[in-house]
Amino acid sequence: MEFKERDIISLKDFSRAEIDYILDTASIMEPIAHSGSDLLSGKILATLFFEPSTRTRLSFESAMHRLGGSTIGFGEVESSSVKKGENLADTMRVVECYADIIVVRHPLEGAARLAAEFASVPVINGGSGAEEHPTQALLDLYTIKKEKGKIDGLKIALVGDLRYGRTVHSLAYALSLYEVNLFFVSPEMLCMRREVLEDIKEKICVIEKDKLDDIIGDVDVLYMTRIQKERFPEVADYAKVRGSYRVDLKLLENARENMILLHPLPRVEEIAPEVDDTIHARYFQQVWNGIVTRMGLLALIMGKIE
Amino acid sequence: MEFKERDIISLKDFSRAEIDYILDTASIMEPIAHSGSDLLSGKILATLFFEPSTRTRLSFESAMHRLGGSTIGFGEVESSSVKKGENLADTMRVVECYADIIVVRHPLEGAARLAAEFASVPVINGGSGAEEHPTQALLDLYTIKKEKGKIDGLKIALVGDLRYGRTVHSLAYALSLYEVNLFFVSPEMLCMRREVLEDIKEKICVIEKDKLDDIIGDVDVLYMTRIQKERFPEVADYAKVRGSYRVDLKLLENARENMILLHPLPRVEEIAPEVDDTIHARYFQQVWNGIVTRMGLLALIMGKIE
Amino acid sequence: MEFKERDIISLKDFSRAEIDYILDTASIMEPIAHSGSDLLSGKILATLFFEPSTRTRLSFESAMHRLGGSTIGFGEVESSSVKKGENLADTMRVVECYADIIVVRHPLEGAARLAAEFASVPVINGGSGAEEHPTQALLDLYTIKKEKGKIDGLKIALVGDLRYGRTVHSLAYALSLYEVNLFFVSPEMLCMRREVLEDIKEKICVIEKDKLDDIIGDVDVLYMTRIQKERFPEVADYAKVRGSYRVDLKLLENARENMILLHPLPRVEEIAPEVDDTIHARYFQQVWNGIVTRMGLLALIMGKIE
Repeated sequence: MEFKERDIISLKDFSRAEIDYILDTASIMEPIAHSGSDLLSGKILATLFFEPSTRTRLSFESAMHRLGGSTIGFGEVESSSVKKGENLADTMRVVECYADIIVVRHPLEGAARLAAEFASVPVINGGSGAEEHPTQALLDLYTIKKEKGKIDGLKIALVGDLRYGRTVHSLAYALSLYEVNLFFVSPEMLCMRREVLEDIKEKICVIEKDKLDDIIGDVDVLYMTRIQKERFPEVADYAKVRGSYRVDLKLLENARENMILLHPLPRVEEIAPEVDDTIHARYFQQVWNGIVTRMGLLALIMGKIE
Repeated sequence: MEFKERDIISLKDFSRAEIDYILDTASIMEPIAHSGSDLLSGKILATLFFEPSTRTRLSFESAMHRLGGSTIGFGEVESSSVKKGENLADTMRVVECYADIIVVRHPLEGAARLAAEFASVPVINGGSGAEEHPTQALLDLYTIKKEKGKIDGLKIALVGDLRYGRTVHSLAYALSLYEVNLFFVSPEMLCMRREVLEDIKEKICVIEKDKLDDIIGDVDVLYMTRIQKERFPEVADYAKVRGSYRVDLKLLENARENMILLHPLPRVEEIAPEVDDTIHARYFQQVWNGIVTRMGLLALIMGKIE
Repeated sequence: MEFKERDIISLKDFSRAEIDYILDTASIMEPIAHSGSDLLSGKILATLFFEPSTRTRLSFESAMHRLGGSTIGFGEVESSSVKKGENLADTMRVVECYADIIVVRHPLEGAARLAAEFASVPVINGGSGAEEHPTQALLDLYTIKKEKGKIDGLKIALVGDLRYGRTVHSLAYALSLYEVNLFFVSPEMLCMRREVLEDIKEKICVIEKDKLDDIIGDVDVLYMTRIQKERFPEVADYAKVRGSYRVDLKLLENARENMILLHPLPRVEEIAPEVDDTIHARYFQQVWNGIVTRMGLLALIMGKIE
């Protein structure tokens, strides 16, 4: 399987076998993440965040440092300088001289793919537009496999903002490569985009619901997402749905005992703090899993693991 | 003495013996700071500065690099995302996956302690609210001991903004563990907070003054602080005291020959540039001492020196 | 030849022999830039960018990492804290404790030289005011020498904003040390400053033109620069000249076959994207050459190459 010099733009570019291979590599990284390594010594990772995301940026930087590499980059740019694709093209052709691998986060759809086309070094999509966040989806899959021992055969609910959340789009697609039952749970105005839904329904069973209560007793994995204020055209629209999708101890009384609760973070009100200490909570473990998943990706792309 | 995995939130958590041990460790770091080291190779320091402070952040980063470690972090955050303790809690539980040790600087009182409670990795307070700045106080103590050979027996004046300055609160407390005579010199509206004063007076002799002239001939250590405009509710209040506490060559004519002059920096007008070349000035040496003190702390907390 | 501990503020401080030596050292760095090195292991570079410049900052950081060193610094400061030379002096005396070498970028003329005077560690000018950008000029020279095999005997045109562009001032001076024919091509209101012109004319042949067409068939090197909107007092003045100096395929029909086209980047409209794939374009190679040139400088200044 060939990952060397490969771009990671969308999980749609990868087969199930390839995704499984990435997850296996992440698993190999667990002890290395603790001990440190010089696998990528002398290599430089550039993190170009045209849209701020402290968590994703620090996660990649931590992964690179644990592999013995260095990092350079920026965490924010004034929108003026990133409007034109032409500028992004030049930026990539400059930064490819500075670094061996580049992570790009960008507010526009398609920007990461465009960036990859212009750069001669491999590019990882650190989140672009509302569509793709492939490394988040990979760490989600890794968490499910690590916690449940498998992905096939599970019943998994994706809950919250399924329309604007970039995380759930990448994850829903990735899960459609496995034999799972999916529940999409959202208020109607935030339901999964039709094109994504149709695409996935061709491969696996998907049921749409609008209440958490309807599915809480049935699922092995409950994947919550934040309902982001900034995605709504009108504040009033946000007020209507805010807080309708909230996990607390009362709701969890009806959950399966071994149901695991995931969230890409940051959470606002959709998971009550009281839930953090329950046997269901795995959202902080996801953060660690993000480190090892990204370590695995970096090692594969740099050709240090085959 | 056990420092491994310990948080450094307030000097009130430490005995005199422990503080002396930290100062001795800082001393051991002097040659290592020049030669470089791989003592913390593979370790990651996160600097989370919710309030900008280039000096303190760069000092910690420099200390970490000299020990062979890596750094990640951010230097500023929009206030919106740090308002709620709940958010800080989640941030710490995320960043503890990215780093082996975390420095937090935060505008709110108590934020560093809260951060430490939520993080499973050790947390160092890089300045919180107007109350605490323990690593600054440690480097001040280290400077005094290095320059005067001892702390006990000295006459030390803390001058300027004793009300709002976080540095003097930590330092005054730390000095109260030694057998010193303290002078607090400030305009009345910036006098040392009563609760701090009472606490310290139980242990050592403290004299309050409102003129530099009154004490300049008596002290071994003159510790100046900046009178910060932004601490004043009214600009007019600032105008009244601005410049009243200023060290220049004329004032120093009455100083003891071996009196040393300290300042946490940045200074504005409270020390005239002409003073920089006198035998009294030690404020730039403090900067270097900050590196070795922080190196010592990092090495102790990571369990690499016992 | 002695470079150890030397400041790099202006190319006027260097002889032709010294500049040639720097270019030769850059050449030695080419394989090391690819393989990585531990030549500056344990050393710390501080990048103090009082004015944002992502490209120059990342270039220095990449150079330092490729030599095995570490970096600290900041990429932007509110203008308020950098107004007074006094403050810059203190900043330098602080940062010299944190780092072994310091790169300063500053909006004011003379700031880099002032910074170097106050710092006890070597300072590199990363661009100051509208006058100097010595490392850009060095990488430009390196590119010309690498591509053409020599500098002496060439006909070189500097085009665009010759009045406000800091790059062309440093480069024009440096080229005057070689036996070249220079063309200065600009709109009248952006013509080369008289004092620079007089200085250079004493040493080499300079011809001023105001049309690209007049010189396109005669030159070996065409050095384009951006006409920066922010340099104009009036927007209307900018509108008049914007786009008058543009290289496209049509213009290149009249160019010599082995003419090379350079640009310090970022470009806006002065080089059409269609030109990127022509045999003339070398502006992205300049970026790489910037890495090896800066590596060479860092190694020389730190005394690791003699």
